[in-house]
Amino acid sequence: MLKGIAASAGVSIAKAYKLESPKVEIVKKEGDPAIEVEKFNAALEKTKTDIEGVKERAAARLSEEELAVFDAHLMMAGDPEFASQIVGMIENDKVNAEYAADTVANQMVAMFESMDNDYFRERAADIKDVTYRLKCNLLGLTIPDLSSISEDSIIVAYDLTPSDTAQLNTFVKGFATSIGGKTSHSAIMANSLEIPAVVGCGDILSAVEHGDTLILDALDGEVFVNPDEETIKKYEAKAKAYAEEKEALKVLVNAESVTTDGHKVELAGNIGGFKDVEGVLKNGGEGVGLFRTEFLYMDNDHFPTEEEQFEAYKAVLEGMQGRRVVVRTLDIGGDKKLSYFEFPEEMNPFLGYRAIRLCLDRTDIFRTQLRALIRASVYGRLCIMFPMIATVKEFCDAKAIYEEEKAKLIAEGVKVADNIEVGMMVEIPAAAVNADNFAKHADFFSIGTNDLIQYSMAADRMSEHVSYLYQPYNPSVLRLIKMTIDGAHKEGKWAGMCGAMAGEPYAVPLLLGMGLDEFSMSATQILKARKMVNGLSKDEAAKLADEALKLATAEEVLDLVKKAVD
Amino acid sequence: MLKGIAASAGVSIAKAYKLESPKVEIVKKEGDPAIEVEKFNAALEKTKTDIEGVKERAAARLSEEELAVFDAHLMMAGDPEFASQIVGMIENDKVNAEYAADTVANQMVAMFESMDNDYFRERAADIKDVTYRLKCNLLGLTIPDLSSISEDSIIVAYDLTPSDTAQLNTFVKGFATSIGGKTSHSAIMANSLEIPAVVGCGDILSAVEHGDTLILDALDGEVFVNPDEETIKKYEAKAKAYAEEKEALKVLVNAESVTTDGHKVELAGNIGGFKDVEGVLKNGGEGVGLFRTEFLYMDNDHFPTEEEQFEAYKAVLEGMQGRRVVVRTLDIGGDKKLSYFEFPEEMNPFLGYRAIRLCLDRTDIFRTQLRALIRASVYGRLCIMFPMIATVKEFCDAKAIYEEEKAKLIAEGVKVADNIEVGMMVEIPAAAVNADNFAKHADFFSIGTNDLIQYSMAADRMSEHVSYLYQPYNPSVLRLIKMTIDGAHKEGKWAGMCGAMAGEPYAVPLLLGMGLDEFSMSATQILKARKMVNGLSKDEAAKLADEALKLATAEEVLDLVKKAVD
Repeated sequence: MLKGIAASAGVSIAKAYKLESPKVEIVKKEGDPAIEVEKFNAALEKTKTDIEGVKERAAARLSEEELAVFDAHLMMAGDPEFASQIVGMIENDKVNAEYAADTVANQMVAMFESMDNDYFRERAADIKDVTYRLKCNLLGLTIPDLSSISEDSIIVAYDLTPSDTAQLNTFVKGFATSIGGKTSHSAIMANSLEIPAVVGCGDILSAVEHGDTLILDALDGEVFVNPDEETIKKYEAKAKAYAEEKEALKVLVNAESVTTDGHKVELAGNIGGFKDVEGVLKNGGEGVGLFRTEFLYMDNDHFPTEEEQFEAYKAVLEGMQGRRVVVRTLDIGGDKKLSYFEFPEEMNPFLGYRAIRLCLDRTDIFRTQLRALIRASVYGRLCIMFPMIATVKEFCDAKAIYEEEKAKLIAEGVKVADNIEVGMMVEIPAAAVNADNFAKHADFFSIGTNDLIQYSMAADRMSEHVSYLYQPYNPSVLRLIKMTIDGAHKEGKWAGMCGAMAGEPYAVPLLLGMGLDEFSMSATQILKARKMVNGLSKDEAAKLADEALKLATAEEVLDLVKKAVD
Repeated sequence: MLKGIAASAGVSIAKAYKLESPKVEIVKKEGDPAIEVEKFNAALEKTKTDIEGVKERAAARLSEEELAVFDAHLMMAGDPEFASQIVGMIENDKVNAEYAADTVANQMVAMFESMDNDYFRERAADIKDVTYRLKCNLLGLTIPDLSSISEDSIIVAYDLTPSDTAQLNTFVKGFATSIGGKTSHSAIMANSLEIPAVVGCGDILSAVEHGDTLILDALDGEVFVNPDEETIKKYEAKAKAYAEEKEALKVLVNAESVTTDGHKVELAGNIGGFKDVEGVLKNGGEGVGLFRTEFLYMDNDHFPTEEEQFEAYKAVLEGMQGRRVVVRTLDIGGDKKLSYFEFPEEMNPFLGYRAIRLCLDRTDIFRTQLRALIRASVYGRLCIMFPMIATVKEFCDAKAIYEEEKAKLIAEGVKVADNIEVGMMVEIPAAAVNADNFAKHADFFSIGTNDLIQYSMAADRMSEHVSYLYQPYNPSVLRLIKMTIDGAHKEGKWAGMCGAMAGEPYAVPLLLGMGLDEFSMSATQILKARKMVNGLSKDEAAKLADEALKLATAEEVLDLVKKAVD
């Protein structure tokens, strides 16, 4: 039995499929520059085509958001600087293409890895993934095609790259890897695909042979290799119980989200585009609480036109069949860049030129999006939401631009819905503490917990040195949430949340108790959240929240909630 | 008459001293590498000696904080990378030393200037200042020695470098420059030296001849060249009135800081080290509200030893003669680095590993400082303050370390004061909204407005793209300040402020009204603030603050205060 980290819940029993990617050995040789450059260009082209192929196959199972990693890879492979460095080395040093590619890539990886920072390390992983494929293409090696697996299997690997996970088909009943953690890419993918995964198992490749029978217990983070009959029976029962529990949730798809004392809330889903709509509906989402429109921009080589955007918004609004759809206007900048737009160099991009700050500066970009949204409004129930609002003036300025474009469209004879709501993200502390004043102008709030926590604590959650300060249960954070909800209610407006916290088991009672009206989360979390809401009393949750708000530390709050809920 | 920006208040009439620094013309020549490298090394050594000389002469008039710019220059001149690039170019390209120095420096300047960011542009200015001196030394040119001015003069220049301003003696009655703004380096220096300055006058060098009579009206931002008798008389009167007003403030040096209705507050000074103590006392400071100990670390080539720190703290405590001295423990990181310590690479250093986060991680560094402080405590009235506290746990952890070291020292037989107060900066939104809980553990708060505003607004004040969000009068900021003060008072503790806001004319009434107990500012602001406090009623200020706290925008708050005060 091997111990690891349970990264995506579930229990599976199946044959092991050992993923052993070809070993790439690079030998430095002399080469004719003309021939090697041609070889390199051909391999790079094939690499791009390969990535596009993987992305296409993956598109069937992954959300827009998850597919974004392939855009990063394509951008990397298409980076003229990367190619020109390799070509330069081939020409100057008269070496073979694979040696040049390997050397240049290793330098870049070393540079990123030396930076003591999760974000840069992710970039290093991207370069490795792309250059591995490039080197295989140069050497004529074939990368195993996981999409060809045709019998029930549990994949055992050192690690799974984004390209690997993207190719997993329905025969894959789970995976176990040597490295990784709960927030590693492969863990996130497993959750999204709803397949069990145990990561960080250490030297599992030595312990498992291709074809071994495996029990993957991704509830307790254990992997059994060739277990005896008794163990198999025990875990078959465990798997069955878990599946039944999951199945039981399905009866809640059409149920109301209502507490034992009759208080109704809305449970909605976060989406990145039209293709995520089905998942929300299938999981009983009562609306879309966050449509991240930045994917329309990131997954593109130009600012999307009004027409392109109109089609995208219309599709989502129609797909949600009259349910509320909260569309967040362009939230770009910080760590989200565009290949066709240059952002200013800033020392602290998270505190910089991004989201609404950019839109109020580049109103041309903003107006195009607003026009597309307003035009699409007649196809469903549209809510428009501005991100990164810090001052009442910013909100009023943004809303005024919206009103102008709406008036222009009406004057042009375009049909426009009369029930569009215009609200804002509350993700900056200044907005939370001044919520009552914002609520006089905004139709609704949606609390973005990731950023709100980050700014409230003045701690970049991407920096491992201060990641201990990412504390959703810190009373400071709870108080800011309470101020936001109270501010909204004071003016008869509604308050939602579209951050990761909205679906967390220990957060739901607190949020319900503080009066949150709408909870928006990943589609796969919705049914579990509904079960929780259905089992809670609003009145008791309110008492719990009141107590929590008086406590001093995150630890005390968690203890309190655990005692009440578990 | 020329119009400019009044950057440092006052009115002067004197002869013009045109500062015309030698024009450096760089001609590319072939050179013998051995000779050129030797020339370069000699000039670089002389440059370092020159900067040290300027720093020494400047030390008499400038504060520790203002002297820090020379450490940046010395670090630059001593940067082995900088030197080795120039030497490399001399050796590879066989060019003359001044051409290599100029080329390398220009590349670095261009790189920093291309970054669309104030912070990097400051670095570019540093490089220019240092390499200008280096090139003059290579070419045998003499940089004019402003410290030799021996008759009353008003300096006219394109711009003043830090080295220039550092050399101004008491004959210099003001300066006027072509470029610059209210926050440019020369403006800050002028304020600190209390000499009038008008900056941004455009082409003043063409309009003025050496020896012309000038009127420098740095109240209204005007410069008159060779004015007639009548104008001179008028401005002599204006200068006299201003001087009298300033003189009148001096009677307040020993006055109490008390409102018309008998409410007493404390007006204190911010210092960077012992040499700033005199300025605080001379300006009637009732204590030191912020002793920035980072200069002990930055102005050094090693972590200062316990003994070195003990001497520094003892000197300040003795100098303040029993008045309260609030010492902030090491606040390093963000944009403040050390030459002898490597910080992790972070994407957003302002949201990263700094101040108390570093001290709780590197307790060896922290304990040394605490021991030195505790040992010095018997020489005055010591308050210890932790910077960048976000959670109650952090405060308690830091205080526990303090208690341990204190107990150890007592066990060692060291005498320790029994009235040491241990408090914290409130500069992170999470601390402000949870102030009541912090006040159960901390003996006092000191609000750091620069960071508090920056984090509350999620806007880097160094980035010009979002500098519009640096809004001290935004109701969100005022509310956070109010929560902090109320939290302290609820537990019978005191609340101070050591940010730039504490001395601002429109902020004082609001802060007083919200109940702030201590205001700490630049020494030169204290008397003006005392005059304000003496003229205000606490009761009316409280009503004003209550009204301001209900408003929605910074503009509305400023309008309200201006109406009440002006």
